[in-house]
Amino acid sequence: MQATMTRIEEKFQGLGVDSAPGQEVRQHDDALAGLAIGEALEGPAVDFSHGDVGADAFPPTPGALGLFVDGYERGGAQAYTEYRGDGAIRELVAERLARFTGAAVSAGDAMILTPGTQSALFLAVLSTVTAGDQVAIVQPDYFANRKLVEFAGARAVPVRLGEMTEGPGAGIDLGQLEDAFRAGARTFLFSNPNNPVGAVYSPEEIAAIARLAETYGVTVIVDQLYARLRYAGTRYTHLRAQDIDPSRVLTIMGPSKTESLSGFRLGLGFGAPAIVARMEKLQAIVSLRAPGYCQAVLRTWFAEPENWLADRIAAHQAIRDDLLGVFRGVDGVRVRTPDAGSYLFPELPLLTVPHAGFVRLLRAQAGVTVTPGTEFSPHAGARIRLNFSQNHERAVRGASRIAAMVERYRQGA
Amino acid sequence: MQATMTRIEEKFQGLGVDSAPGQEVRQHDDALAGLAIGEALEGPAVDFSHGDVGADAFPPTPGALGLFVDGYERGGAQAYTEYRGDGAIRELVAERLARFTGAAVSAGDAMILTPGTQSALFLAVLSTVTAGDQVAIVQPDYFANRKLVEFAGARAVPVRLGEMTEGPGAGIDLGQLEDAFRAGARTFLFSNPNNPVGAVYSPEEIAAIARLAETYGVTVIVDQLYARLRYAGTRYTHLRAQDIDPSRVLTIMGPSKTESLSGFRLGLGFGAPAIVARMEKLQAIVSLRAPGYCQAVLRTWFAEPENWLADRIAAHQAIRDDLLGVFRGVDGVRVRTPDAGSYLFPELPLLTVPHAGFVRLLRAQAGVTVTPGTEFSPHAGARIRLNFSQNHERAVRGASRIAAMVERYRQGA
Repeated sequence: MQATMTRIEEKFQGLGVDSAPGQEVRQHDDALAGLAIGEALEGPAVDFSHGDVGADAFPPTPGALGLFVDGYERGGAQAYTEYRGDGAIRELVAERLARFTGAAVSAGDAMILTPGTQSALFLAVLSTVTAGDQVAIVQPDYFANRKLVEFAGARAVPVRLGEMTEGPGAGIDLGQLEDAFRAGARTFLFSNPNNPVGAVYSPEEIAAIARLAETYGVTVIVDQLYARLRYAGTRYTHLRAQDIDPSRVLTIMGPSKTESLSGFRLGLGFGAPAIVARMEKLQAIVSLRAPGYCQAVLRTWFAEPENWLADRIAAHQAIRDDLLGVFRGVDGVRVRTPDAGSYLFPELPLLTVPHAGFVRLLRAQAGVTVTPGTEFSPHAGARIRLNFSQNHERAVRGASRIAAMVERYRQGA
Repeated sequence: MQATMTRIEEKFQGLGVDSAPGQEVRQHDDALAGLAIGEALEGPAVDFSHGDVGADAFPPTPGALGLFVDGYERGGAQAYTEYRGDGAIRELVAERLARFTGAAVSAGDAMILTPGTQSALFLAVLSTVTAGDQVAIVQPDYFANRKLVEFAGARAVPVRLGEMTEGPGAGIDLGQLEDAFRAGARTFLFSNPNNPVGAVYSPEEIAAIARLAETYGVTVIVDQLYARLRYAGTRYTHLRAQDIDPSRVLTIMGPSKTESLSGFRLGLGFGAPAIVARMEKLQAIVSLRAPGYCQAVLRTWFAEPENWLADRIAAHQAIRDDLLGVFRGVDGVRVRTPDAGSYLFPELPLLTVPHAGFVRLLRAQAGVTVTPGTEFSPHAGARIRLNFSQNHERAVRGASRIAAMVERYRQGA
């Protein structure tokens, strides 16, 4: 009994959720009283831990709710799809994704719908990696990547990204990547655009990743969740359309972010049929299928009204630029310009409180929720991540309060 | 490379989905041509692999769609709940489940909403069991139980249920259960009412399970998915309300079946706070949360219009009785009367084709889909499972075609 408890508790030790985006409500901040300086800052609460899908921020794609209702009215056929998702919807989406990524997608055997992209990531990793394997992951990258690898009983081999490089290119250390492959990593998991940095990998970087994967027989899981939300002048390269064996690449996308459809829990994995087949077997015991009626909402995807995507990108770019202006106006704050996505990952100067405490003070004193950098990399303790897919005015006011708080807690202030 | 592929393929070998309910569409039945006798049987197609949630069968709870739309209109607060689910909805549901089960439920630390009960089962097993453990499971029982245990790297120790016992009681072999615990099983996973048999455990059986769990320090995961759909005269006993340490019991329920809300993917686990805490950590990397807007639909649960549940039970009982009449009119077919739930698990006589082939012929020649008994127990090769939550008339016509097919393929016919 004792031994069992210890083993299961050990297995879960690396899976903390207290600082994960959206979990702040479970924190108890009694200990903060001793750290706090000054009064609360006035202003509307801003939750930068995730995007705001509300009516005065970035609401879901037009028509999404109507398609959900249509699906509901279809009844059993929509409620009980194949585990990998409704066949007709897969056909539709496969064709659109083939056009978007520049390489064929077989709806029959190379695509699976999942309850959110998180689920696609989980299924992809657990369908590729077994206990004792080595998996190359980027630092910093999406906070769950490390945890997924550890839960699979595998070992994460970190590869650094130059957080402060300004493009072109993400600044991945390709030498370190090759070292990881040479040392035995046979899976590489990364997001492009990178979350939290917003960097997009250059054509040369993606070509190098394809070449290294071929040389060392590596399977690549690439999370392209933000691949549609690209700012002016950003060139995007799809790994799956490169000179690489298609059975080596599993691509993950979904309509939760750019399209603000997160409340429907929809994601998908496509590519390597052998991996998709295992993902379906695993989904059968994990969650059966993506929510049936929600699947119908995918019919809007890549079929939005004219100019909808361009307008959405322009609106995000305007917020990005204002927030960069706010942060760059603060002495000692450094921040890279994101090429894509809706994240900023600024580095803060030395403060009179630990950065972890500062993040909690931001919430308690300034009504601003951000995610600590350590969720994304052990080397990012001085960074915070903001999802700026928010009401524009509130986002700027929230960022300004972060700036004021940095001044208040600055060392030597 | 080769070694890795072999290990991952091995891990997935036991996770077949070809015969799982709802997956029949992926089967290719070219080989059946040589086995088929006679012409196709006329009649509307009936899919007994799952319930029919259509308008002329058992549609979702009144008001469900409206609550979904309300959730959608709430925006971000409903889309991005805590990983364990919206706090206000947990409060509501906890109170109702406490009343239903007869024991307190803490909404704060003893309940998690999940994308379907399948997900609650997955999270509960993976949060309790680690590689090398032994887990007692019932034979026959829900088809995923064995697969979940194997995926966790644990060993399933089977405990027989008397499929043909007529109540009171499910007919579990309590001696075998104690043997399993004595031999080292520290987790027991079972469904009550049993899926596929429809048996309800007697007060004495549940008391004995509680006593054995206390004696041997066993954690019990009990899947009570069908606990509301009980036929006249059936007495139901909630394990969690017995004389048992609450930290040993994790109960799973959800509104997918009796309430026909499967298309929303909603389930929940409640009980042991330490297990719920691990389930949330795991959910953070598996699927983040139950679909946000769908969570709002739980407000209907245990708050249906007056007589709604009684009417729904009566309608199912009438179908059950008609189907039992059809099957018992066929020489050599044996079937237990279900006390609860919407499953029949009849045993067929010897046929001129293997039973696995007969199940495929049923689909090809009679337009009737059922699930092979071997999904539920290796000893149930001669059985088929039917979910009779269907349009009444079509269900009877479908069952009659099964009867005609048994006559056609009977040995010595």
